[in-house]
Amino acid sequence: MAENLAVALVHHPVYNKHHQVVTTAVTNLDIHDIARTARTYNLRRYFLVTPSPEQQSMIGRITSHWDKGWGADYNPDRREALSLVTVTATLEDAVADFQRQFTRQLLVIATGARPRPNAISFHELRQKLAIPDQPCLLVLGTGWGLADELFEKTDANLEPICGAGDYNHLPVRSALAIMLDRLLGTRETIPT
Amino acid sequence: MAENLAVALVHHPVYNKHHQVVTTAVTNLDIHDIARTARTYNLRRYFLVTPSPEQQSMIGRITSHWDKGWGADYNPDRREALSLVTVTATLEDAVADFQRQFTRQLLVIATGARPRPNAISFHELRQKLAIPDQPCLLVLGTGWGLADELFEKTDANLEPICGAGDYNHLPVRSALAIMLDRLLGTRETIPT
Repeated sequence: MAENLAVALVHHPVYNKHHQVVTTAVTNLDIHDIARTARTYNLRRYFLVTPSPEQQSMIGRITSHWDKGWGADYNPDRREALSLVTVTATLEDAVADFQRQFTRQLLVIATGARPRPNAISFHELRQKLAIPDQPCLLVLGTGWGLADELFEKTDANLEPICGAGDYNHLPVRSALAIMLDRLLGTRETIPT
Repeated sequence: MAENLAVALVHHPVYNKHHQVVTTAVTNLDIHDIARTARTYNLRRYFLVTPSPEQQSMIGRITSHWDKGWGADYNPDRREALSLVTVTATLEDAVADFQRQFTRQLLVIATGARPRPNAISFHELRQKLAIPDQPCLLVLGTGWGLADELFEKTDANLEPICGAGDYNHLPVRSALAIMLDRLLGTRETIPT
């Protein structure tokens, strides 16, 4: 169920264009867009993962502007969305933080644009999410995607989203929206 | 089929927070994100609709940077996505421009977050898109959504995307991604 699902947006370790492991910059838009999408699908938390103390305080300044600054009155919907945001230094910290809220073992699912062996399908994951009290953390990478080492630390990897051809460069914000809709969206009008 | 589908992102006439009809500013991110999502789902065109000459030239500067500037070499994927972009002053211009490429009558579909009478469902629209040579233009509003007058000029309005509750503030970029996935995405692993 949606309230047992959280998303983690990882800024390290991820690849850059040249397949080097880097720390990407947090963008204002990833904070807002993903918070609004996560809130629309009723997710429990939105972890922003960055080891950089400067980036962590930048996120704090943005969320507190909308939580306590003039933004709180100006746009309460945004405040509500941003209340999901939690900053952690590593993915392990996010996992530990979210696991504490549940007794059942957390399922940590890595995502990416490239096909990988032994992927879990959207259909299978949707069924797992229907189990009461089954917590799940969906992990997305910024830049050119999650470093391979992270895939080794997760329980499974989710099948990639395929568009209509071989071009597959969805922005991470759009990819997450599609994932949440496939996993949690109301489907009565959608054919198989 | 995807190659008969185009999207129009309208910056006027749309509502602001106070339900006044305004012209919103074009954002760099809407240009890039929607172009990449549209390209991934193999859309034919991406119309950016704004009556503002300044905004129109700004879009031209951005797309030509990635088409002819150093961006073209640096990121050819982005170039390919942005090649879908066409700027028009009004929705009528976008409709006329896209219609010229087809003999069959174009289907113009308005979208929005609010439920409206006589909406076409995703399922129905997906079936229409499966008709060979049936062109379709999906119209999305920026700001607080398309002005009512535009709904009167379109052939139908699409059912809104519902999340998991009453909070429904998807960014337009995320809403479009979900729409394209529902209308065109590969569905074999998704249950009804």
